[in-house]
Amino acid sequence: MSAPAVPGTGAAVAREVLLARAYLSRVAEPPAPALAALVGEIGPVAAARRVREGALHGPGAIPPAVAGETAARRATDRAEADLALLAARRGRLVVPEDPEWPALALAGLGAAAGVDGTPGLEGASARDGLAEPLALWARGPLRLSGAPVDWVAMVGARAASEYGLWVARDWGADLADRGKTVVSGAALGVDGAAHRGALAVEGRTVAVLACGIDRAYPPSHATLLDHLARRGLVVTEYPPGTTPARHRFLVRNRLVAALTAGTLVVEAAARSGAMRTALVAEALGRSVMVVPGPVTSALSVGCHELAQRPEVSVVGRPAHVVERVGRVGDGLDAPPGTPSRRTDGLDPAALRVHEALPLHAARTAVRLAHDSGVDPAEVTTHLSDLQARGLVEQDGDRWRRRPG
Amino acid sequence: MSAPAVPGTGAAVAREVLLARAYLSRVAEPPAPALAALVGEIGPVAAARRVREGALHGPGAIPPAVAGETAARRATDRAEADLALLAARRGRLVVPEDPEWPALALAGLGAAAGVDGTPGLEGASARDGLAEPLALWARGPLRLSGAPVDWVAMVGARAASEYGLWVARDWGADLADRGKTVVSGAALGVDGAAHRGALAVEGRTVAVLACGIDRAYPPSHATLLDHLARRGLVVTEYPPGTTPARHRFLVRNRLVAALTAGTLVVEAAARSGAMRTALVAEALGRSVMVVPGPVTSALSVGCHELAQRPEVSVVGRPAHVVERVGRVGDGLDAPPGTPSRRTDGLDPAALRVHEALPLHAARTAVRLAHDSGVDPAEVTTHLSDLQARGLVEQDGDRWRRRPG
Repeated sequence: MSAPAVPGTGAAVAREVLLARAYLSRVAEPPAPALAALVGEIGPVAAARRVREGALHGPGAIPPAVAGETAARRATDRAEADLALLAARRGRLVVPEDPEWPALALAGLGAAAGVDGTPGLEGASARDGLAEPLALWARGPLRLSGAPVDWVAMVGARAASEYGLWVARDWGADLADRGKTVVSGAALGVDGAAHRGALAVEGRTVAVLACGIDRAYPPSHATLLDHLARRGLVVTEYPPGTTPARHRFLVRNRLVAALTAGTLVVEAAARSGAMRTALVAEALGRSVMVVPGPVTSALSVGCHELAQRPEVSVVGRPAHVVERVGRVGDGLDAPPGTPSRRTDGLDPAALRVHEALPLHAARTAVRLAHDSGVDPAEVTTHLSDLQARGLVEQDGDRWRRRPG
Repeated sequence: MSAPAVPGTGAAVAREVLLARAYLSRVAEPPAPALAALVGEIGPVAAARRVREGALHGPGAIPPAVAGETAARRATDRAEADLALLAARRGRLVVPEDPEWPALALAGLGAAAGVDGTPGLEGASARDGLAEPLALWARGPLRLSGAPVDWVAMVGARAASEYGLWVARDWGADLADRGKTVVSGAALGVDGAAHRGALAVEGRTVAVLACGIDRAYPPSHATLLDHLARRGLVVTEYPPGTTPARHRFLVRNRLVAALTAGTLVVEAAARSGAMRTALVAEALGRSVMVVPGPVTSALSVGCHELAQRPEVSVVGRPAHVVERVGRVGDGLDAPPGTPSRRTDGLDPAALRVHEALPLHAARTAVRLAHDSGVDPAEVTTHLSDLQARGLVEQDGDRWRRRPG
């Protein structure tokens, strides 16, 4: 399928709103729940003015929590330059005042209380909070407004195995080919393979970054990021110039979970960012799916540990994913590799008569009744049935198997 | 652990009961629900007499369904010879009148209505019924009476992969070492590997056969069967001399499911006897578990398809099995391979400050506050905390990372 045409660049939104949100998106390190609450209460323009002024008392004062979130950078205002840089790269700032804003996808972030504990995932990452982003810096023809319907996150290890890379690429292609939008983080390993799989079938794919939209990270994915920006979407809540840092990957992961109907973990070690993404998805009420792997592989341990949680599904093929994130009726294809036998559908007693026949010798009906334990009065009926199916043939008063 | 001493050979049960059940166990092909019901109603001795007489009318007549089940073989009575053969092999006939009878395990077989449909599993096998066995021919020091508590079935493909064989053997050993009794069918592939794993750690293991106890099937497992009979248990509902046949494997599988608290499918193709065993276990309300494998392996397709059923669990290590079939408190060991980091347990803001430090350059506290977005009033506190943990060091008014 071909990607939609390049949409507008937020022209419908008042310039002062864009400037205010561009400023606010730099002034606090995401997630900034207190600032997000203030913006929700008094709007971005007023909130930006108050944060710039930084008054702690009197009319127009900001709450202490907002002061804490913004004290370090409130004097830094690069909004004009950031928007100019974005325009030069044919990007756009998507804000809640814009119809493209994925309100349905992100609404849960403000409400979700947090992520409950799983070994190796407590600590800093679990206490980060799940505030909505203040704005999304975006490049690419795909629009955010459709999320999370038919958007699927594919996440996993950077140091993926050949198996994980194969699954990421093959399933990325398969899901994109079924009309899903494949969302990932553009990282090495599983992320990149998932994006590439979707791109290979000209499907839809979205990279959510943990750095500024002008940064190519990892550097070896510069070309991939270019492709994504031309044919899919690259999006981030971080303003231009922001460098990647570990805590930002964890914070970014909440957007990957929130923008999608389900998160699929392809490969994950016992403690990993992919597991964190999965737990955020679970906290947001989205599907969490894991790709199984060999129990002997350290890179599947995280998947198998997640599978111990009641809400987590193990998926054996892309159709299983579609069943969980798609609409009713999607994904219903037959299991692969189901062989059929000549004896399929036989009455159990007829099957017993058939099995009582040796491979290379003939038997009378009486002997067959004895050996199979089937009522002698019924054996002849079953033998006729078997004969009609071409499974046995008569030889005088005896019966033998017909070769398949 | 060492196996218990060889128990008695059913001497407490009246000889006429043993003879009646030995006769009945040959006269109808299992499962024989009508005969089982008659035996339950009037007892084995009276039931055997009536079946021998075979009257269809008048006092002492047998119901038509019983007549159908027994017509082919009612004249065959080898009970004396069968019991003599069994005694010569130091075996015993375990019957419901014997305290060794696993009544708790088998009670469900009469009640379970059947197995619901899964692709490739409907048809003959699903209509076979789940009647209780009339007697169990047994050899070996292990007693049946403990089942199903701590008994675990391990089943899977005969043509298993190296991976499947490895898991069967390794987990068979691990589970036996944790005090579980490993139950399987002595077949090639997964079955044999599971038995051997349990034997290797001198654990408890039970083979349930689909043929007479005097048969070594498959022939290449003759030595394995000898070991099982000397150190574990070999058991079958089929009288001596019964040859293996496909329908008998399906019928036998219901005993594997019934004798165990849970069934673990190690490897299974899309349509397989192991899946059938799993569905019987589910119908009986026992745990069903599957070992995950590569989604690229045809021998794991059955496992992953089973995993789509809500009641089926995916298990990544033996402890997961113990959690599901064990008693409360069993199996609670830590996930493997959870790495620890020097920054574990850091306050999120402190972590952000730490990450804002470049690898090989020093920064002032003010600059760190800006780059991390952390309130400048708090940065010094976080830096002291980081210093106390040995993560940073001071250099004049600047800070740098301390190498790990």
